Amino acid sequence: MFFEGPEKKLELAVAPGGPSLRSLGRPYWESVVRAARAKILSSIEGEAIDAYLLSESSLFVADRWLTMITCGRTDLVSAVLKLIKDLGRKRLRYLIYERKNAHFQEYQPANFFDDLKRLRRAAPGKGYRFGDGDDHHLFMYHLDRAHVPDAGDRTLEILMHGIDPAAARIFIQGPGHTRDYIRERSGIWDLRPGFAVDDHLFEPMGYSLNAIKGPHYYTVHVTPQAIGSYVSFETNCLEPGPSRLIERVLSIFRPRSCDVVLFKPSGDGLRARCALPLKSATRQVLDCGYEVSFGHHFAPRVGPAPALELSA
Amino acid sequence: MFFEGPEKKLELAVAPGGPSLRSLGRPYWESVVRAARAKILSSIEGEAIDAYLLSESSLFVADRWLTMITCGRTDLVSAVLKLIKDLGRKRLRYLIYERKNAHFQEYQPANFFDDLKRLRRAAPGKGYRFGDGDDHHLFMYHLDRAHVPDAGDRTLEILMHGIDPAAARIFIQGPGHTRDYIRERSGIWDLRPGFAVDDHLFEPMGYSLNAIKGPHYYTVHVTPQAIGSYVSFETNCLEPGPSRLIERVLSIFRPRSCDVVLFKPSGDGLRARCALPLKSATRQVLDCGYEVSFGHHFAPRVGPAPALELSA
Repeated sequence: MFFEGPEKKLELAVAPGGPSLRSLGRPYWESVVRAARAKILSSIEGEAIDAYLLSESSLFVADRWLTMITCGRTDLVSAVLKLIKDLGRKRLRYLIYERKNAHFQEYQPANFFDDLKRLRRAAPGKGYRFGDGDDHHLFMYHLDRAHVPDAGDRTLEILMHGIDPAAARIFIQGPGHTRDYIRERSGIWDLRPGFAVDDHLFEPMGYSLNAIKGPHYYTVHVTPQAIGSYVSFETNCLEPGPSRLIERVLSIFRPRSCDVVLFKPSGDGLRARCALPLKSATRQVLDCGYEVSFGHHFAPRVGPAPALELSA
Repeated sequence: MFFEGPEKKLELAVAPGGPSLRSLGRPYWESVVRAARAKILSSIEGEAIDAYLLSESSLFVADRWLTMITCGRTDLVSAVLKLIKDLGRKRLRYLIYERKNAHFQEYQPANFFDDLKRLRRAAPGKGYRFGDGDDHHLFMYHLDRAHVPDAGDRTLEILMHGIDPAAARIFIQGPGHTRDYIRERSGIWDLRPGFAVDDHLFEPMGYSLNAIKGPHYYTVHVTPQAIGSYVSFETNCLEPGPSRLIERVLSIFRPRSCDVVLFKPSGDGLRARCALPLKSATRQVLDCGYEVSFGHHFAPRVGPAPALELSA
């Protein structure tokens, strides 16, 4: 009945020297994904990035960095601990683990405070909460190591809650609702031109898309369930600018509320503007060299809505 | 480390005839409170209402109705089931159970969907959610029985999240922070004139107040903890008008956000206005004769806040 859309996410980079992460091969990445209690469903290989589409979200592996995103009841921390052990803590340039507050925290195997204890036993790090605890918020851990991100090393996340039912319907299986239909009708294949795309339509609903081009990726995960509907969009390709990108993505899903998360090198003047009213904003420079901003926005409504009747 | 301030609440009334609820006596009410995993700490007897101050919140018992509010990790549904059995389902005029979304749902013994199953096995009823599932929301069950509330049968709840630290500090034990200090400095003893008051300052922090006068009560529960700070105010005495009352209560606690919940007879034109901007509003006429409105409001902030660093 309930599916947990909001994700956990890992991003890490390794220092130059030693084998490329991509060269570790698919069986190795299968074992990492398995540690998180997920499976690889398909993959595409790009010039600079291998993109794995998972039973719960996505894994992008480049030579020197990786991003792994998992939803549902996955245990991403176990995969993080395996990676720290296998790659060697000293080889890490940075490691950031984040976790959005869940819709149904009571069905999760652990909360962020549990995660933080496990991570800190393996590698000293700092823990943060972006946003108020009683409201939409993002937890974050980062390895306690100084790092200077490259110029242009930016990531944008748009986390959307309460998707417009007409937009959500496109991602629910049914007569004619194939991947081709989604490709033509949803608008998410065309967010950036020239990307290689891999996607998966889940039974009976749910949809994931991975897209890569050179050193860039974008990914979309749709949880269209009426209770707990959610979509995440993430990319490291900020063309044609984060504000334009936010506008395009929001116009597709028309959510009741959304979080906008921007990672950029500390001192980078880039701003991500969202046209929806802001409920709360948090900004923090991390000791690992990134400045992270988190804003929660909402779509104003006219007049009160009726209560939702819950079936027996 | 974490205390769950947001409450569960029961309100029920019995048909005329049969013994008064007050006449059931303190040992009986001790057994009801125990069923919810709480204890009676003290009590005051009024003209029309007995007010019990509990280890987790409050119980008000009049001859024909009662209101029971419990916070923390209590199991209020067990007390509700005991009352349905002891009083007899047929004798109930109405029964409403509600539950605010928790700050730390993972530490609760059950969620509302579990509650709803147990309640419906004992008495057919409807379930509702006021507000979006990913946002502040209120769950509600009511016995499926037609009822016509008396004119003026109104209840106002103000549920406040993220209390101003200076306001919260008054309710944390320390040198000079006695009940008398709270009485003089907090402003909550003077919310309505002429009420008999009972209160309790918890170790090491937390504060509860029960106040009664004739057929009226008001109650305040303060969770001043830095993580998950929360205050609830509830009353069935809407003088000098709900909007004035909201303004006075908010001026004491200056929360980052609040929910305003108003119960009134269906068709009653009363409105509760809150000066803070509205994020979302829900209104529903229940088959048991009440119209319930739920609004979530927030205090606008200027500029982004820093992230909260979480200690090891």
